[in-house]
Amino acid sequence: MTLVVGVDIGGTKTSAGLVDSSGTLLAVRTLPTPAAQGPAAVLDTAAGLVAEVASGAGDVTAVGVGSAGVVDPRRGVIVSATGAIAGWAGTDLRGEVSRRLGLPVTVGNDVHAHALGEQWRGAAAGYADVLLVAVGTGIGASVVLGGRVLRGAHSVAGHAGHVPAAAAAGRPCPCGGHGHVEAVASGPALLAEYRARAAAAVSGLADVARLAAQGDRIAVSVLAGGAAALGSTIGGLMNVIDPEVVVVGGGVAACGELWWQALREGIAAEVLPALREVPVGPAALGGDAALLGAARMALEVAG
Amino acid sequence: MTLVVGVDIGGTKTSAGLVDSSGTLLAVRTLPTPAAQGPAAVLDTAAGLVAEVASGAGDVTAVGVGSAGVVDPRRGVIVSATGAIAGWAGTDLRGEVSRRLGLPVTVGNDVHAHALGEQWRGAAAGYADVLLVAVGTGIGASVVLGGRVLRGAHSVAGHAGHVPAAAAAGRPCPCGGHGHVEAVASGPALLAEYRARAAAAVSGLADVARLAAQGDRIAVSVLAGGAAALGSTIGGLMNVIDPEVVVVGGGVAACGELWWQALREGIAAEVLPALREVPVGPAALGGDAALLGAARMALEVAG
Repeated sequence: MTLVVGVDIGGTKTSAGLVDSSGTLLAVRTLPTPAAQGPAAVLDTAAGLVAEVASGAGDVTAVGVGSAGVVDPRRGVIVSATGAIAGWAGTDLRGEVSRRLGLPVTVGNDVHAHALGEQWRGAAAGYADVLLVAVGTGIGASVVLGGRVLRGAHSVAGHAGHVPAAAAAGRPCPCGGHGHVEAVASGPALLAEYRARAAAAVSGLADVARLAAQGDRIAVSVLAGGAAALGSTIGGLMNVIDPEVVVVGGGVAACGELWWQALREGIAAEVLPALREVPVGPAALGGDAALLGAARMALEVAG
Repeated sequence: MTLVVGVDIGGTKTSAGLVDSSGTLLAVRTLPTPAAQGPAAVLDTAAGLVAEVASGAGDVTAVGVGSAGVVDPRRGVIVSATGAIAGWAGTDLRGEVSRRLGLPVTVGNDVHAHALGEQWRGAAAGYADVLLVAVGTGIGASVVLGGRVLRGAHSVAGHAGHVPAAAAAGRPCPCGGHGHVEAVASGPALLAEYRARAAAAVSGLADVARLAAQGDRIAVSVLAGGAAALGSTIGGLMNVIDPEVVVVGGGVAACGELWWQALREGIAAEVLPALREVPVGPAALGGDAALLGAARMALEVAG
């Protein structure tokens, strides 16, 4: 069976996973991303992790790398990135990883890898046309059509956080614009809204979710409001993309049944009759999704 | 050179066009659609028009039909339709047209045909990834990816009119929902808004456009408001789909430079930096676009 390694480079941690061609994750290694030290240190860390998981295994034939930022899979380069990794924009991700390992390398965006993983072995397995939405610090999406991730003409497809939402009218968005759904439905947006309305000390979104589960009315209102806004956006996108299934993952999707109910109601209020039965459910693979998706990309270039 | 016929069946009129494989429209015939008389009369009219344009030409090898409604291109059937053509839903469009003509027939949605026509010979020629938006009585879109129209898992992809818009909050939409952009940016919505605000008699949207061009402040405000709302929606969709080019057609797009300026500003306010230079312009083929697109579909099945 063909063996490949999938790599997930995030602003906080970097992981590598040894995966066989059936999609079984055989070994995983994770280290903090040396983000402040710049690209060379990050690339060394990633290559080191690949060598570790590959050590003692059979012949690894290719490596797939999913990375934060806008990644051009044709040129193999990081087109743009937030400041999470110092100097990351412009990095020749494919060339540098390939040079360090002497293996064929394919690269892509981490949210796209996440979607491919869920479509291969997770909540979207068996579906060819998938809308995957990841809700965490930001909100991103991947559109999978005929089993392939839509990358877009400028490699920026899937920025579902930057869709205008009525509930976000006038609010500044991290992208520099205003009124986008990310401004009201991301993890930081929900936490800030709770803090502003409750004037109470909470250490993170998990606290808000716990309070909501206990019946705290402000926490319930904040989570339900954000989920309804996101559901409305997802419903509108479904009317344009017409997927077979919608999968929602990311840290905010762990906020409990109350959040999910508001999300489903938000979707139901928007979708056309033909789409009312489209399944909407949680991602299944957690942090492994991006590793498996990156491995799936690697299989496309494996010998 | 291969000859095919493209057919455009709308609620008001039906056209057939003889087209060669280079995309030249050689002959066109149009008749009113006998919409009230039901499917058999409509199909007879369409088949008669095909026979007329094909008469005396060389061998026509296939027919492509674009129709209003939700069309399942795999089964060749009208899945659902508004009441514009009595009893249209459920019609075996491909089978019935093929039986009448003895030719291979391929079918699709009329907005999808419109997009294929513009992508083949019109404003989107030379682009593989296109977002085409048609703004008239309703608002529809077609997403062309790699030169192929995205049909979606339930053949309803492209319903861009049914995307939530802040400017439409609370307004009833023709789809039965609320708050969709079609409720504020379609031709009927603009006309109703002008009538409500101006309490003046206008016979149609062309009057409003003329008044706006003359500086009528309410007309300017109504057109700019609708265009800005639509631009906002298009900008959000661009962030998700990432097209090479955006083409906007339909009757409302003929409302003049004022409307276009507000549309462009609405788009610019939403798009991510990587998409600021994406060209946005008017459709080039008018009513011929759907005929040419239907002919393009026919070429896919032509012998």
